[in-house]
Parts: sequence; C-alpha cells; structure tokens
Amino acid sequence: METSRKTIIVFSGEFDKVMAAFIIANGAAAMDDEVTMFFTFWGLNALRKDTHVKTTGKTPLQKMFGAMMPRGPKKLGLSNLNFAGAGPKLMMRVMRQQNVMTLTELIDTAREQGIKFVACTMSMDVMGLRKEELLDGIEYAGVASYLVDADESNVNLFI
Amino acid sequence: METSRKTIIVFSGEFDKVMAAFIIANGAAAMDDEVTMFFTFWGLNALRKDTHVKTTGKTPLQKMFGAMMPRGPKKLGLSNLNFAGAGPKLMMRVMRQQNVMTLTELIDTAREQGIKFVACTMSMDVMGLRKEELLDGIEYAGVASYLVDADESNVNLFI
Amino acid sequence: METSRKTIIVFSGEFDKVMAAFIIANGAAAMDDEVTMFFTFWGLNALRKDTHVKTTGKTPLQKMFGAMMPRGPKKLGLSNLNFAGAGPKLMMRVMRQQNVMTLTELIDTAREQGIKFVACTMSMDVMGLRKEELLDGIEYAGVASYLVDADESNVNLFI
Repeated sequence: METSRKTIIVFSGEFDKVMAAFIIANGAAAMDDEVTMFFTFWGLNALRKDTHVKTTGKTPLQKMFGAMMPRGPKKLGLSNLNFAGAGPKLMMRVMRQQNVMTLTELIDTAREQGIKFVACTMSMDVMGLRKEELLDGIEYAGVASYLVDADESNVNLFI
Repeated sequence: METSRKTIIVFSGEFDKVMAAFIIANGAAAMDDEVTMFFTFWGLNALRKDTHVKTTGKTPLQKMFGAMMPRGPKKLGLSNLNFAGAGPKLMMRVMRQQNVMTLTELIDTAREQGIKFVACTMSMDVMGLRKEELLDGIEYAGVASYLVDADESNVNLFI
Repeated sequence: METSRKTIIVFSGEFDKVMAAFIIANGAAAMDDEVTMFFTFWGLNALRKDTHVKTTGKTPLQKMFGAMMPRGPKKLGLSNLNFAGAGPKLMMRVMRQQNVMTLTELIDTAREQGIKFVACTMSMDVMGLRKEELLDGIEYAGVASYLVDADESNVNLFI
C-alpha cells in the first residue's frame, strides 16, 4: 500500500460530524496515510478541555462565545435528533453496545497514530478561544498552512 | 473525454443536500465517470424503503432511532425553511414546475447509470438500520473500503 | 510556487460557512491558484443584492422562496448560536475587533483576485432567483461546468 496524504477541515462542532471526521482520519492513518485535521470555527470545540480554564485578556464578546460553546467531545450536540443533549447520550449508549469507539477514544487513537491536529488561529480569535483551553501539544496555524497540506494530499474533505 | 473516478460521502439526510449529492453524482456518471456514493449516518435515510419493514434483534435504542428517522427520499426534511415538512413539499412542487428531476427519479437514474451505492455498516449499527430496510442490491462496507475508492478518485466530496 | 486549481461548492447559506468558503478561496488565490466558487441552493443567497429587485415571470412559489431567503452577505444567519440574527452581528463585531475581514470585504477581495463566481442555474430556478437579483458580472452554469473545473483541480470542497 502506498502512503498518501489526506486533509480534513473540521468546521462543524456536532458530535456526529466530528465522529465521522475522526473515523475517516483514523481509518486513513491505519492505512499508513499522513493525515492533517484542521479544526476551525465550531470544530474547535472538539479540542476544548472539559474543565474551565482561566484566561486573561478576552473581550466581553469573546468571553460570551466561549461560555456558550461546548467544552470538549462529551458536550457536543447532534446535528439531528439532539433533544437538548439527550440525542448524543443515546447515540453514545448505542455505540457502546455495538462496540463502536467513543469520540474520546477516537481522538486519543488519532493522536497515538500521529495524526496532525491544527487549530485555526483566526477562528480562535473570533470564537475567543485560547491555546490553554485546547488540548495540549497541537499545532496552530492559518489557512495558508492548510492549503500547503491540501496541495500535497489526494483526499481533502470539509466536514 | 477521459474516465475518472469520484466519491461522495452522503452524511447528511436533508432533502436538499441529498438532492445536491445525486445531481453531482448523476452529472459525473453522465460524463462517463465511475462514481461511488458512500451513505453514512443520516444519509442512510435516503436509502430506506418507505414502508415499515419487520426486523428482529434490534435493541430498544436502535428501534427508537429507527422509528424517529425518515423512511426514504420522500420523507426527508430541508436544511432550511423546512416548516415541519412543508418546505420540501413546496420545493418539490417548484422542481416539477421547472422540470427538475425529483429525488426519487435522481436515485433511479443513479442506479441505472451504474453508480455504486455503499451503505456504511458501522453507521447502520449505530442508527439501528438493517439491510432489509434499505434499497435492495446495494453494497455494504466500512471506512476502509471508502478510502480505497477515494484514493483512486480525483474528486472526493463530503456532503 | 506552482499554480494549481481549486473548486469550492458553496451550498450552505450560513454566515459562518460562507465566511469559511471565502477565507479558503482567498487564501488559495493569494497563493496564485485559480479558484472557482460554485454557488448552489442556499449558497446563492450570499450573492444576492441587498435591495429588492423587481422581477417578472416568477411563479407564486418562487416568489415565496425568494421573499423568505436572506438578501446578501449581511443577512445570513449563523449555523450555531444564531439567536434570531443576533449571533452573526456579535460575531461580526468580534471580527472587527480582531481585524478579521468582514464577509463583504472577503467577497470584494475574491472578485479583485479574479476568483470565478458561478451561480448554479438549476438551483436558481428552484429557489426562484433571477440573474438581476445576483451580483453583476458573475457566470451562470450547471453541474457539468462544475465537474469540468473539478476534474482539473487538486482540491475540491463542498461547503
């Protein structure tokens, strides 16, 4: 099997879409592909730590956006049948019954497999998210960096 | 015209997005491209038969998801202006007036043109959908199969 | 740097998704890529003039869709945290504070950089939108035209 590269822009922050992104990314990495996941806008919420992190220098609006958005993979809603958060919980329960990896496990596996996580710095400014609020050890870059990776990849998805 | 390959992941189950997927897929097939449509999560609903199909061995949660999700292309909602199902009906009416193919016709045409339909087996487990509930004669596979097809394609979309 | 081509299908009409599309498109154009943006379904609303344009020959249903959909980039809603239109306004304010280009500026820049704007004629019929309602000087085509561009591009996104 040849190595090739893949990029996935994770724009959406819904549980099911983020799941799909990580399933594809992990599948490709398991086939020895180099994968870059570029997290932007609502997708950044999947990278948030689940505890409140003290930050300084946020504007009131940035604080507001930060407070209203979900903190980490366990807090994401479904794009359909969300039922005020009950939907993801039910879906997670089915997943456990069916021995499907949880989103947290998928994220851990992605990191173990060396998938590159990039957080979009411009979106972080807009959403009011700081580095200390996101998973440790990820990269930070802008659209130019994404485009360089995408140019060298044979599959590029926007999720 | 050269033959090339295309893949489309149909993740979304909204009427308008599924329409877009089939319009692109049929357009490519008409230009002699080999097209694979990979149905996953809510996109699987576009492949459901419109009648109730008796199944055995579903867990209560799987039954619940199955019961709440739309059965087939005529039951899908719009991503905008849905108005509890009135939106798709109105859009279908405009389509008929404008001589645009209906979604059912697009699906039939896709099959006649030899477009490969693949249902994602992992999503089927999560959503609680069984083979007998989906269109006959389609293929069943997982993400690895998608990735093999995507690697050989020059256009890969996630819808 | 080599020139390569990119296509972006702008299907979604939400402020944040349209922003993302233009940020990627402008980034690629700044790297000397040839970029085609293909506007279809709700994405067409990003190209609407913000004033009411008199049109003739629309069916009542087309008039209705036209009246209910947002006119231009300043009227688009957010895909999350929309709060009946307050969300986009707040996000625009943060963007101004962070010196991020507004959507209107991004669209202007895209045109200055020679990005090709194509409006999907089939969707225009379905949504009841006429050429005189959309930005001047854009192109009009169907899915076949998109596919020709996509075949020659190394990055093709559906947003």
